[in-house]
Amino acid sequence: MKGRFITLEGCEGVGKSTQLRLLAEYLNREGVDTVFTREPGGTPLAERIRGILLDEALVVSPYAEAELFATARRDHIDNLILPSIEAGKLVVCDRYIDSSLAYQGVARGLGIERVYEINSYARDNCMPELTIFIDMDPANSWRRQKGKEVMHDRMERESAAFHAACYRGYKEIAAREPERFALIVPERDKTATHLKIVEALKARGIV
Amino acid sequence: MKGRFITLEGCEGVGKSTQLRLLAEYLNREGVDTVFTREPGGTPLAERIRGILLDEALVVSPYAEAELFATARRDHIDNLILPSIEAGKLVVCDRYIDSSLAYQGVARGLGIERVYEINSYARDNCMPELTIFIDMDPANSWRRQKGKEVMHDRMERESAAFHAACYRGYKEIAAREPERFALIVPERDKTATHLKIVEALKARGIV
Repeated sequence: MKGRFITLEGCEGVGKSTQLRLLAEYLNREGVDTVFTREPGGTPLAERIRGILLDEALVVSPYAEAELFATARRDHIDNLILPSIEAGKLVVCDRYIDSSLAYQGVARGLGIERVYEINSYARDNCMPELTIFIDMDPANSWRRQKGKEVMHDRMERESAAFHAACYRGYKEIAAREPERFALIVPERDKTATHLKIVEALKARGIV
Repeated sequence: MKGRFITLEGCEGVGKSTQLRLLAEYLNREGVDTVFTREPGGTPLAERIRGILLDEALVVSPYAEAELFATARRDHIDNLILPSIEAGKLVVCDRYIDSSLAYQGVARGLGIERVYEINSYARDNCMPELTIFIDMDPANSWRRQKGKEVMHDRMERESAAFHAACYRGYKEIAAREPERFALIVPERDKTATHLKIVEALKARGIV
């Protein structure tokens, strides 16, 4: 039996990493044969490209950024995602094509259509059947509410306006593909948010 | 006055590096304001991509290879080549789009048209007016004649059949654009080869 492919998306500081951890624990308890992966990254080549993309010291144009993400993604698709789906596993990917559409397409201003074009290999060959979007404006993020400003890399150091544009981008993409997206408005109680995500997976028969 | 842009191409072991050095010495003596650069590389981002492309330990698909070269090239064009031309300099680049066409297009089998497409930014915005091709079959290379087999990186370690295909690729590309290409059949005497290259530059009014 063929496996399945889902992705998790969201802006910075909205609890995506916590939800990934809770989802991993849940799927492990349920005995679901799962491959957890992330973008940029997931294969040796893609991890090397990740090192470039997140390096604060480098100046990377929006176009180069979109191209590097797409090149890393194609390698990830060919060498990890598609083989894992073929092997019957559930693949859960932390960020995927929608990150490119929101970050490079909208926030960096390349345009959604152009970024789709750059990502035509993913679009044509490997789209997730479900994308969990943690639907929280980064202006209201948990991190911000706690007064924490953790800025790890080039993406996270971008301005509030940049992250606001990413959020608008996600909402626009989700509106285009309402069947693929599950918009999860997060609760202050992380377990409550987790249960909403599990419900979304159950509604698709994934768990 | 706007500057000019020329490239140097050739297979492995045919004396390209030696000819670049002799050309640099010549242009320096003549007082030509020259920027010497190379591909992959030339800018901080492109040098980082170079590190990936030449790393023997990485498995890189032909498509990813072509994409990474093109992304590095675009950065190189925008941040070094075009600004240097605008500043009135002569830009001499060691390998450029024709390396992609010969190596990825022909030797890796992606096809010349497809690699041109991947490199549409370079094709449309920044083509050299002269490409010096050191026209020597790598099967007869100086390095080989001396019994030396120096293999520095992922490209150089490819098989003889691969390098033969690169040579065929170069010849095909040169035949398509006879006005841009100067085919320099190298002499055993490196100074004689150098003088042929200088003649080609003089014929175009570059020196």
